[in-house]
Amino acid sequence: MPNKKSHPSALHEKAGISPPEMISSESVKNIQQFRKVQPSSTELVDGILAGNITALSRAITLVESTNGGHLAKANEVINACLPHANKSVRIGITGVPGVGKSTFIEAFGKYLTGLGKKVAVLAVDPSSTISHGSILGDKTRMEELVKDKNAYIRPSASGETLGGVARKTRETITLCEACGFDTIIIETVGVGQSETAVHSMVDFFLLLKISGAGDELQGIKRGIMEMADAIVINKADGDNIKKAQFAKLEFNRALHLFPAKKSGWTPTTSTCSAITHEGIPEVWETIQKFLELTKGNNSLFEKRKEQNQYWMLETINEQLKLNFYNHPEIQKLLDSTKKAVQNDEISPFAAASLLLKTYFKD
Amino acid sequence: MPNKKSHPSALHEKAGISPPEMISSESVKNIQQFRKVQPSSTELVDGILAGNITALSRAITLVESTNGGHLAKANEVINACLPHANKSVRIGITGVPGVGKSTFIEAFGKYLTGLGKKVAVLAVDPSSTISHGSILGDKTRMEELVKDKNAYIRPSASGETLGGVARKTRETITLCEACGFDTIIIETVGVGQSETAVHSMVDFFLLLKISGAGDELQGIKRGIMEMADAIVINKADGDNIKKAQFAKLEFNRALHLFPAKKSGWTPTTSTCSAITHEGIPEVWETIQKFLELTKGNNSLFEKRKEQNQYWMLETINEQLKLNFYNHPEIQKLLDSTKKAVQNDEISPFAAASLLLKTYFKD
Repeated sequence: MPNKKSHPSALHEKAGISPPEMISSESVKNIQQFRKVQPSSTELVDGILAGNITALSRAITLVESTNGGHLAKANEVINACLPHANKSVRIGITGVPGVGKSTFIEAFGKYLTGLGKKVAVLAVDPSSTISHGSILGDKTRMEELVKDKNAYIRPSASGETLGGVARKTRETITLCEACGFDTIIIETVGVGQSETAVHSMVDFFLLLKISGAGDELQGIKRGIMEMADAIVINKADGDNIKKAQFAKLEFNRALHLFPAKKSGWTPTTSTCSAITHEGIPEVWETIQKFLELTKGNNSLFEKRKEQNQYWMLETINEQLKLNFYNHPEIQKLLDSTKKAVQNDEISPFAAASLLLKTYFKD
Repeated sequence: MPNKKSHPSALHEKAGISPPEMISSESVKNIQQFRKVQPSSTELVDGILAGNITALSRAITLVESTNGGHLAKANEVINACLPHANKSVRIGITGVPGVGKSTFIEAFGKYLTGLGKKVAVLAVDPSSTISHGSILGDKTRMEELVKDKNAYIRPSASGETLGGVARKTRETITLCEACGFDTIIIETVGVGQSETAVHSMVDFFLLLKISGAGDELQGIKRGIMEMADAIVINKADGDNIKKAQFAKLEFNRALHLFPAKKSGWTPTTSTCSAITHEGIPEVWETIQKFLELTKGNNSLFEKRKEQNQYWMLETINEQLKLNFYNHPEIQKLLDSTKKAVQNDEISPFAAASLLLKTYFKD
């Protein structure tokens, strides 16, 4: 009904808009019908094992789902995939923003698919939001690899906690492996605790660096250098070659300061250019040598077992803490107790004891 | 009754020995009476604040007690001491066995008492048994310091978990400070996680090293170098001086590889000899500079607040885990679940989820 007043009140309501006629009720029914047809977990597993990328993507979406009802189904799929997983090499790649992680992964990934490898590129980025955050979000940064049918690129899962994001990525590795990917690359940004998480799910941990004006060794987050199985100095091209060579020497000296690795592997340093592709094959050669050593002395599989156990215990510990800190009584008391402790009004242990008593009373 | 057989049977019992008459029943009563007179928490606190070493020792024994009934009293004493604590400098000293920690602490401690300081020497050694373990157990290794009335040496508390031992040492710091000790030295061995615990209760962390045949930088536990505020190369005497100087240079270069400290402090390297006492005053000078900087920018007190909070949260987390892993149902399931996870029969996250369901069901 058209409004007849020339100056309608702000409170005036317009007549509702009726649905356009080209959406037939039949179409709506079809769409709803299609939505209902979620593949069963068996269908997903069969698809994954057959190398079907659509099935893989749907299973990953299931794993990433925050819908509680999806958890049981996700676990079914993963447990069914487990016997078919575990056969790839898992490579973690980290480096601060600006070192050229994406261009390196693009060049390295293309080199690997050129060798006949099937490459999955995943990411752990707890800062990513619902809209799939900063790293790997923009697939255009890996233009070539995206088009490669032997490569599969999946942006970081989103989530509020690192633990949650890490869990989803760890499960995604299993799915990718069961789907036939033999080389898994996991990218992470050089911030927070995300490298520790990635380090705990890969076989080989690669730290990407660039040479700088005298600050080759600055800006390395605590503990990162110790985790590295290889340090690769990227952007060793043009005027930069000499500086990169110098940085390589510096890092090499630095690596000797660290205690020997359990695996018996001695970390390496090298230079490369993601643009000229110089040094890219050498990175893969290094990883081959690493695999030869660690498969030979069985440390590769021992480490994977330890990693599995680590993730189980980590998940338990995180959940125990969540349960405690989300307890309504604890939430009421925590801030004031923290303050009292910080200001030496109560000993940290007496304070802990009080809070624990409150928690376990229930 | 004397035995009349010339070859008594092995089963023969001698007549009992009656108590010697010089222990009068009155003395026994007195001793028992004395034992009953446990000082009240107020008496202990008054004694501590008056600088009474006997009261201090008794309070520490109370804190170290595993008798559940003592906990409340210990907490009373500590909380009453807290407002009088917090005024010392807390120095952590670590180094692998053989670097001469005891002789260094003896020389350093004597130097400090010579300056009029009151020095307490504590230790964190989770490997110590009921009989007070390997470090600081043998006070003869600090002969001079033991006799010094301005020094107080207390061996490591014993305990099954590092958390327990660390807690007791952390509380002992408070008691020593309230008792007037202005310099607290906490020794730890270079193994396990004990350095992290000590690092989390001190202001200044000193890594003691010796020069070796080319292995200056070997054998450093992961992460220890990053924690150090100073690296001191001990045993720089006799033929060793040149090697120690070289080691100093090597370590100095190494320290630059690490990210800057929050406090703004740049870690230092130096050499010293606990025998010639060369370099000992310089260690104290370094600590003075550190205090000047960190008191100036307030990072000293900020760090202590953070440490207090850390200990509260750590204690909570440890207790939550203990409660979980000691749960009878979990104990039944844990081993088999771990194995299944290690062998990729179930995903670590699905396994965690199963165990957590069992735990929270109760």
